[in-house]
Amino acid sequence: MSKTAAVPPEPYASRISNLRTELARRKVDGYLIQDRMDQYWLTGFTGEDGPVLVTPKQVVLLTDGRFDEAADREAPFARKVLRKKRTPDETMREVKRHRVSRLGFNPNHMSVAEFDALKKLAAPVRLVPLEGVIKPLRASKDAGEVQRVRASIQVAEQAFQNLRQWLRPGQTERQIAARLVYEMQNLGAQGECFPTIVAAGANSSLPHYEPGDRALRENEILLIDWGARHNWYCSDLTRVLWFGDIPSELKKALAVVRQAHDQAIAAVRPGIKAKAVDRVARDIITKAGYGKLFNHGLGHGLGLLVHEAPRVAKPSTDTLLPGMVITIEPGIYMPGIGGIRLEDDVLVTETGYEVLTTLPLELS
Amino acid sequence: MSKTAAVPPEPYASRISNLRTELARRKVDGYLIQDRMDQYWLTGFTGEDGPVLVTPKQVVLLTDGRFDEAADREAPFARKVLRKKRTPDETMREVKRHRVSRLGFNPNHMSVAEFDALKKLAAPVRLVPLEGVIKPLRASKDAGEVQRVRASIQVAEQAFQNLRQWLRPGQTERQIAARLVYEMQNLGAQGECFPTIVAAGANSSLPHYEPGDRALRENEILLIDWGARHNWYCSDLTRVLWFGDIPSELKKALAVVRQAHDQAIAAVRPGIKAKAVDRVARDIITKAGYGKLFNHGLGHGLGLLVHEAPRVAKPSTDTLLPGMVITIEPGIYMPGIGGIRLEDDVLVTETGYEVLTTLPLELS
Repeated sequence: MSKTAAVPPEPYASRISNLRTELARRKVDGYLIQDRMDQYWLTGFTGEDGPVLVTPKQVVLLTDGRFDEAADREAPFARKVLRKKRTPDETMREVKRHRVSRLGFNPNHMSVAEFDALKKLAAPVRLVPLEGVIKPLRASKDAGEVQRVRASIQVAEQAFQNLRQWLRPGQTERQIAARLVYEMQNLGAQGECFPTIVAAGANSSLPHYEPGDRALRENEILLIDWGARHNWYCSDLTRVLWFGDIPSELKKALAVVRQAHDQAIAAVRPGIKAKAVDRVARDIITKAGYGKLFNHGLGHGLGLLVHEAPRVAKPSTDTLLPGMVITIEPGIYMPGIGGIRLEDDVLVTETGYEVLTTLPLELS
Repeated sequence: MSKTAAVPPEPYASRISNLRTELARRKVDGYLIQDRMDQYWLTGFTGEDGPVLVTPKQVVLLTDGRFDEAADREAPFARKVLRKKRTPDETMREVKRHRVSRLGFNPNHMSVAEFDALKKLAAPVRLVPLEGVIKPLRASKDAGEVQRVRASIQVAEQAFQNLRQWLRPGQTERQIAARLVYEMQNLGAQGECFPTIVAAGANSSLPHYEPGDRALRENEILLIDWGARHNWYCSDLTRVLWFGDIPSELKKALAVVRQAHDQAIAAVRPGIKAKAVDRVARDIITKAGYGKLFNHGLGHGLGLLVHEAPRVAKPSTDTLLPGMVITIEPGIYMPGIGGIRLEDDVLVTETGYEVLTTLPLELS
């Protein structure tokens, strides 16, 4: 165990302070963080093992020997506890050492097995399931985070431009996806932020398509949905490329998607309901007669995960706030013909929006 | 909802039958499978959404519109239910439709939030946490699975040979890792089965190293731990490459690791305790004076996941059985100098073992 913890530097000091305010409001004097990205966001610790325990006075990092050095380097302000067996009793011992009486945790991040094991050892500590504690805090990005999303976008865009130089008919979807990821990593990305979608021809009508052995042909469309994880932050773009003559239905759909994309982005501002932004795009697509062919939400928050708060969709209850980074990605999917989706990453500013992506929307 | 389910083909028929035998023994008349690889193993369904409900008479696949086509193609024998909202009430409705009275589930695969939601709707159905139901069934591979592990190994080995042609000092660890994954995908792999480790020089002394911006230099060691996911099955190998003059300590350690590797493999046979195989390697390394520098288990089961049953380590309670595929990966790690690990994939046969990997152990 390390000696008395030091004062956390920014941005961690602010985040920890905001979390403590929320914990006080929820009437718990301890909170167990089990999600790796939540742990990273709060402390800078990148190790795979946790959890992190936050009390009104301490940030305790429970990890194991594999991440001993990483803990010292990345989160020197945390009280480090190296566990030998990574068992619940070691966790509960720390909880009690810090005299926690009500221990909050996220019930979406704890398994029934872990809960049962902790529960047996808990008394007199009370386990308190709390949802939505860190999620809203992570939703609005600080300047440093926005900078890292920008850097991630830059790598994704440069990799895409490199890919275009190399791309030709005959290559399979899987080879194209592999090449794009390779280009991102060569530019310094940790990897892809989510499984890259490369869909040739009619395959593009499946919004969740997995690249296969289908080779790209002349005179067809190629849809690519990709993003980097760079310095832990994600980017997420979609573009369609045209090779030769394209079915006129797709050209028509592209014009509609483009309009939906542009108008939805123009509607982004702090204070607007996320579902109202979805509606702008959905109304345009519906009026053009494609309503049933736009079968997913307009977008989602983006940060340490490719999908995080806020939700930008019809059933969303979220309101856009300054600092949120969201995707705007309307689409029209025609089974057997093909699909069009255009996706950009947009920052909600104090007064409106800023499009963070810079890649032209129409490419060939 | 699809019409009455058809009879499952092999290998799914046998797996489902074995699972039902186990469920009867555990006195439950329904079992909820939430783990994606468990779902795939039991039904062939590759979609990301589940769960699968198994009753004495039916296999019910609860999924959503995104995976409608995949469900029909991959698991036509399952009763398909497309859920609109993917909420617990849709799951519980199916459970009740099939008149389940005791519903088993794996408490490691269900979150506290999911459990609480199901519990509220469950009466009169009883929720019964059951551990280790599918895990032991998956541990022994059938002939088709062994064939798929072999194919995964072949891709990983060929990719490594391609990498060696390209490899030269000056390239960074991250670039080398990216290239190796790219080679695997070009050969038809879905991707890497786990984050590839490429550790140059002294970095190789960290068994869980993440590749960084460190460039490979002349006269040093390069440790690579990699594996493909190919047709869903994993491979897992480690080799060390030598560039020029290497510290004599590492050469000495290599000879010891090689001996531990060879003797441990020779000890593999059905009926032996996995911890006894670990001990063979550990004793050799300890007698050579490196005991404290071999700070992880000898190996692990390999299949749809890179880490699955059995555990091949000191605290393991598992016994090796025919059909199990395990890694044997002894190592010696000298902080500040470097590490050696040699890893092969080994099948437990009816009479002994077969080494599935074919790549030479010593390369330069």
